[in-house]
Amino acid sequence: IDAIFGNGLTKPPQGFVKKCIQQINNSKSSVIAIDMPSGLMDNNPVTKESSVVQALHTLTFQAPKLCMYLPLNEKYSKNWHVLDIGLDVAFLNKLETNYYTIDKTNVLEIYRKREKFSHKGSFGHGLIIGGSFGKIGAVVLATKATLKIGCGLATAYLPKCGYEIMQSAVPEAMVEVDDEKYIQYFNYKSKVNVIGIGIGLEKHPKTVLGFTKFLKENTKPLVIDADAINILAEHEKLLNHIPVNTVFTPHPKEFQRLVGNWQNDYEKLEKMQEFSKQWSCILILKGHYTAIAYKGKVYFNTTGNSALATGGSGDVLTGYITGLIAQNYTSLEASILAVYLHGLSADIAILEQESRESFMASDNFKYLGKAFQSLQK
Amino acid sequence: IDAIFGNGLTKPPQGFVKKCIQQINNSKSSVIAIDMPSGLMDNNPVTKESSVVQALHTLTFQAPKLCMYLPLNEKYSKNWHVLDIGLDVAFLNKLETNYYTIDKTNVLEIYRKREKFSHKGSFGHGLIIGGSFGKIGAVVLATKATLKIGCGLATAYLPKCGYEIMQSAVPEAMVEVDDEKYIQYFNYKSKVNVIGIGIGLEKHPKTVLGFTKFLKENTKPLVIDADAINILAEHEKLLNHIPVNTVFTPHPKEFQRLVGNWQNDYEKLEKMQEFSKQWSCILILKGHYTAIAYKGKVYFNTTGNSALATGGSGDVLTGYITGLIAQNYTSLEASILAVYLHGLSADIAILEQESRESFMASDNFKYLGKAFQSLQK
Amino acid sequence: IDAIFGNGLTKPPQGFVKKCIQQINNSKSSVIAIDMPSGLMDNNPVTKESSVVQALHTLTFQAPKLCMYLPLNEKYSKNWHVLDIGLDVAFLNKLETNYYTIDKTNVLEIYRKREKFSHKGSFGHGLIIGGSFGKIGAVVLATKATLKIGCGLATAYLPKCGYEIMQSAVPEAMVEVDDEKYIQYFNYKSKVNVIGIGIGLEKHPKTVLGFTKFLKENTKPLVIDADAINILAEHEKLLNHIPVNTVFTPHPKEFQRLVGNWQNDYEKLEKMQEFSKQWSCILILKGHYTAIAYKGKVYFNTTGNSALATGGSGDVLTGYITGLIAQNYTSLEASILAVYLHGLSADIAILEQESRESFMASDNFKYLGKAFQSLQK
Amino acid sequence: IDAIFGNGLTKPPQGFVKKCIQQINNSKSSVIAIDMPSGLMDNNPVTKESSVVQALHTLTFQAPKLCMYLPLNEKYSKNWHVLDIGLDVAFLNKLETNYYTIDKTNVLEIYRKREKFSHKGSFGHGLIIGGSFGKIGAVVLATKATLKIGCGLATAYLPKCGYEIMQSAVPEAMVEVDDEKYIQYFNYKSKVNVIGIGIGLEKHPKTVLGFTKFLKENTKPLVIDADAINILAEHEKLLNHIPVNTVFTPHPKEFQRLVGNWQNDYEKLEKMQEFSKQWSCILILKGHYTAIAYKGKVYFNTTGNSALATGGSGDVLTGYITGLIAQNYTSLEASILAVYLHGLSADIAILEQESRESFMASDNFKYLGKAFQSLQK
Repeated sequence: IDAIFGNGLTKPPQGFVKKCIQQINNSKSSVIAIDMPSGLMDNNPVTKESSVVQALHTLTFQAPKLCMYLPLNEKYSKNWHVLDIGLDVAFLNKLETNYYTIDKTNVLEIYRKREKFSHKGSFGHGLIIGGSFGKIGAVVLATKATLKIGCGLATAYLPKCGYEIMQSAVPEAMVEVDDEKYIQYFNYKSKVNVIGIGIGLEKHPKTVLGFTKFLKENTKPLVIDADAINILAEHEKLLNHIPVNTVFTPHPKEFQRLVGNWQNDYEKLEKMQEFSKQWSCILILKGHYTAIAYKGKVYFNTTGNSALATGGSGDVLTGYITGLIAQNYTSLEASILAVYLHGLSADIAILEQESRESFMASDNFKYLGKAFQSLQK
Repeated sequence: IDAIFGNGLTKPPQGFVKKCIQQINNSKSSVIAIDMPSGLMDNNPVTKESSVVQALHTLTFQAPKLCMYLPLNEKYSKNWHVLDIGLDVAFLNKLETNYYTIDKTNVLEIYRKREKFSHKGSFGHGLIIGGSFGKIGAVVLATKATLKIGCGLATAYLPKCGYEIMQSAVPEAMVEVDDEKYIQYFNYKSKVNVIGIGIGLEKHPKTVLGFTKFLKENTKPLVIDADAINILAEHEKLLNHIPVNTVFTPHPKEFQRLVGNWQNDYEKLEKMQEFSKQWSCILILKGHYTAIAYKGKVYFNTTGNSALATGGSGDVLTGYITGLIAQNYTSLEASILAVYLHGLSADIAILEQESRESFMASDNFKYLGKAFQSLQK
Repeated sequence: IDAIFGNGLTKPPQGFVKKCIQQINNSKSSVIAIDMPSGLMDNNPVTKESSVVQALHTLTFQAPKLCMYLPLNEKYSKNWHVLDIGLDVAFLNKLETNYYTIDKTNVLEIYRKREKFSHKGSFGHGLIIGGSFGKIGAVVLATKATLKIGCGLATAYLPKCGYEIMQSAVPEAMVEVDDEKYIQYFNYKSKVNVIGIGIGLEKHPKTVLGFTKFLKENTKPLVIDADAINILAEHEKLLNHIPVNTVFTPHPKEFQRLVGNWQNDYEKLEKMQEFSKQWSCILILKGHYTAIAYKGKVYFNTTGNSALATGGSGDVLTGYITGLIAQNYTSLEASILAVYLHGLSADIAILEQESRESFMASDNFKYLGKAFQSLQK
Repeated sequence: IDAIFGNGLTKPPQGFVKKCIQQINNSKSSVIAIDMPSGLMDNNPVTKESSVVQALHTLTFQAPKLCMYLPLNEKYSKNWHVLDIGLDVAFLNKLETNYYTIDKTNVLEIYRKREKFSHKGSFGHGLIIGGSFGKIGAVVLATKATLKIGCGLATAYLPKCGYEIMQSAVPEAMVEVDDEKYIQYFNYKSKVNVIGIGIGLEKHPKTVLGFTKFLKENTKPLVIDADAINILAEHEKLLNHIPVNTVFTPHPKEFQRLVGNWQNDYEKLEKMQEFSKQWSCILILKGHYTAIAYKGKVYFNTTGNSALATGGSGDVLTGYITGLIAQNYTSLEASILAVYLHGLSADIAILEQESRESFMASDNFKYLGKAFQSLQK
């Protein structure tokens, strides 16, 4: 079962219960919570005043609960495990929820094996637009990712100062150039079917002007990342020009720029759902359980680890999504599949040659093949 | 047995049989065809109106049939297997056919082990001419491929904008340069014994002029790919200047530019045979069963998979063929051996670290050693 | 037990004993020393006149002795092993000593596992400042090391002539540039939380001027290596501007420039202790048992081998320390952890694909993942 | 036993014996020769008129014979094996011979394990001088080889057009530059203890002038390769300026330019011995059994295979020799050790990931570690 439920508690613990919780937390024992750590409630987010049991392990009944996917609650449910207590699964499946997990079963429903007689034209042409002086590597990572995820052709569109770097690093990619140190014209000529835009872009006034013009004229599906998000945050009206089903891939700070502050992770989730509904887009919030909001629903990824918390990881993800849309996956399918495989590669990496610390963004490419292979086992 | 036969049926199914076929296709059962899916005929290619059984598996008698190698028929014979029904092999071998498969047995007849006292001079000097601003990576791949397949020396001839890229990427290769962003002079100085030409070339008017002059003066064996094919398609008279046994390596669209449209895959095969006869050349049509036409015969490759459907794969193949001709294989031998090993490397890759999606063109190099090793088992 | 003790002997051997020692050394037998090779004394360093048994193996009682960690004594105790003779460990632990070894147990007390919900911001932003024309590779190694050890973001600040080199080599890093061929302005803009400075810097007068200004204004924690050490050696007053807990990573010659000559390894140790106390800094002297001096104590590393005796190894170490401080380790913790992992990677390397000779500085990156993994076994 | 002997026959077969040999060669049987294929004589080299048994296998008595190491005789002794027939080894060892093989036993006598307390200064500083526009890769390979074989520091001195290429490819190396597209000044500043010179140099008149001046002033040990050999061949008087124990590494054509033509491989051997005596140098003739001539003796290498017959292999070898001399091996020791390890790496490569064809010069680096490791088994 993939649905995630909120838990039922609504009132924060008081009096005697509160004291018990404090005593549990002050003890040096290993605490195991049954169903939920007492005091942890989806309807009543923890604050500084809350009393919540800090459990080392939580054995939760039948299905994971929303609170477990939120950074806010990290210290209360460090490790958790679902305990099958024999509830009626058919009944559970009928319950309404807006929260889902992404696991292998879901991904296999999306993933399509390649046809025998396919050719590179079958797998589309992805374009990556980005880069500025000193931030060319981000475009290198995104462009390579576009190809690595199976895109038939990839073109990088970047400032002239990135030309040799890109052609040296990714011989399989084609390159188009714009101005010397930043992008201002956005006048690519390749015939592409999806565009990933924003990585390493910076916010030079001419870049902003060019990006504005680009958005107004563009008809291709978009994946919007990094500085393209930051520009949109500063020029909200531009959001009116994004195509339906655009994918946004902010990290929490970038998302904050886009929608303002939130009180806690529950409000953040609401803002994600609202944003995705308002702009008919897919909103991917990167983090431990990367969350994908679409049409009011949120999908939490279950792969990945802190190895991904490193510069360039997001660029790789943007390339993966771009490359999957090029292969005719819908924007939502591409988002789910990319997020899952991106995390799974990092999971495989730390079982093989790397550790959470030593893993660099480009190491994702080394293990993507095995991540795909694992889908077929 | 490597010969491929057409099947004997000549009339499309009508009336009751036609209805049966429709019913079979509408049923949700797994369909297994014996010998051939009913209605699939080499002499009567499927059209929109055809009634053909869509089989999941076909158990075909004694020898594979031509129709199984054609993209057109993909959905009617998804998977097929040869069933030995005890026909007289000696008799079969006497039957005339123009269609053959390429498998390990054939390849072993071509492949020559290296002599003990050989030196780099024994293995020739291949030249790759190609590249233009933004498409230098293609030349990098082809040049590295030339060396990787065993060529003694390789030189890349490309625009100045590719100089550092090539020298960084392939230290084993030498480099000569032409104009700044495209090639127009074609005046290489290295003493080479074969030239692979066209990858990433683009069709700048000065490039076309230079290429024309080059062709008229050239006396070296040629492997012609990509934009060199496109230029020839637009300037047909130039074909009079290609040397005997030139190798052409178009993908279907490039071939179409060369010979015009075809109705179906059978007509495409005819056009290949005609073209190869008219210009005394080897015509390699890249695709799932890459087909090599020479002197009216067609050889279908049996290695490779959809991992190769990615930008740069063709550049690698061009380099492999060039590097094998440099080693004194005939153009036909080089074509067969290159196509086989190129596919086999991709087959090994997906058994090891990669998947069909994650495989990039340059990954071919990592597994070529094992492809060669498998010839000796 | 990790403490290292001096041994108790105080008088050099004379007369009959001296003759015995000479006879032992002249014999061709394999010599095994019990506790200590006779004549080897911590309080009386060997000189040309000393008579000391040259043992192939030394079985030392209960705890390693200081003399075993010093290059000076290499030929007297080629291999040594600690022999448990049942001394009272609790008593030993109470004895005062300034010398300690760094082994897995100590390192595990320092090492912190990553939190589940961490993000790249959790792991800091390290800056590497260095490089000059012809010495850009050193900055490449240090910058990559900063990321490889787990830093969230890394920026390289170098001369313009290193721009493309860095962006090609480390796509995960950002780049800022200074003057054409050397650094003189030191005006980085990234928001970083630690700076590794000096690798490949050279000592151009303008570089010295700029470095002076930089030191006076800087408030960030520093790791000082190579030419930054050499400049400080020539301009001692500048030492007044280094922040508390700065890490210095000289090799012996660089340290000599900083503090003048020493008579023997014991005096060298004293100078290290003094220097670290005088400037409230961490002094890492690179060598076989890399020694870290801090607040009058010295920590000897027990990992690593002569594979690390190769150009660029020090640059990698500087990057590792910088990257660990960025992740909120204290300067001392970062020094200990970096030195240990840097050595351990080389130890793993020679068990796997490399030898002491074939190991190059950048090979450290390939085995760092496994070095981290070994901490968790 | 490592000595190689000539065989005793002196007269070519005539009459009945000649007819027998012809009949044997015309038969289609697999021929096995005992001791020697009849008619094969060291004192009477084969010519077009010779009658010699063409054996598939030769079982030679007690010790290999000289003729087996010469390309000239390849087809007469394709595979050979030494057969112990109980001759008196002590007696054999007393026999005089100028020909020796290089195998693991000899190499182990030369090879020195690294001292524990060694540092990068212990392993010297090698300088590679070479390169010209389009031939920078050769210098990249030689410089990397210098470090890979264990040299403490390496500097590449090349034309400006190679600056970025080298710094990108070998971050561990330092770089000095000369003129734009070729070398003419030869004014390096690094303090080095050996110089490898000539790879990719070309023969521009200014290069020749500069090289002349360089040779007259130079006092460092030299390894002379490629175009430096060609220049010396054209300016013989310059040979008077090479230091004692200079290492020359020609392939046969380069050697021919140096000493003129030879009739057969025996005369070639004589010319090698003479050249090495005349100029007090080490002459390494690259080929299947690479031969090292020194003071009238010739050492044949027994490792390596035709994988090494590829562009760049020689550059790698030059770097290996340079790097070993830097580590204080004598020129002869360095030559023997380098040739042996260079071949052994290629032998290991084809047992692992590569084939004789797919092996590229830079693949040597991947297996050098294992080649060193095998010395210690």
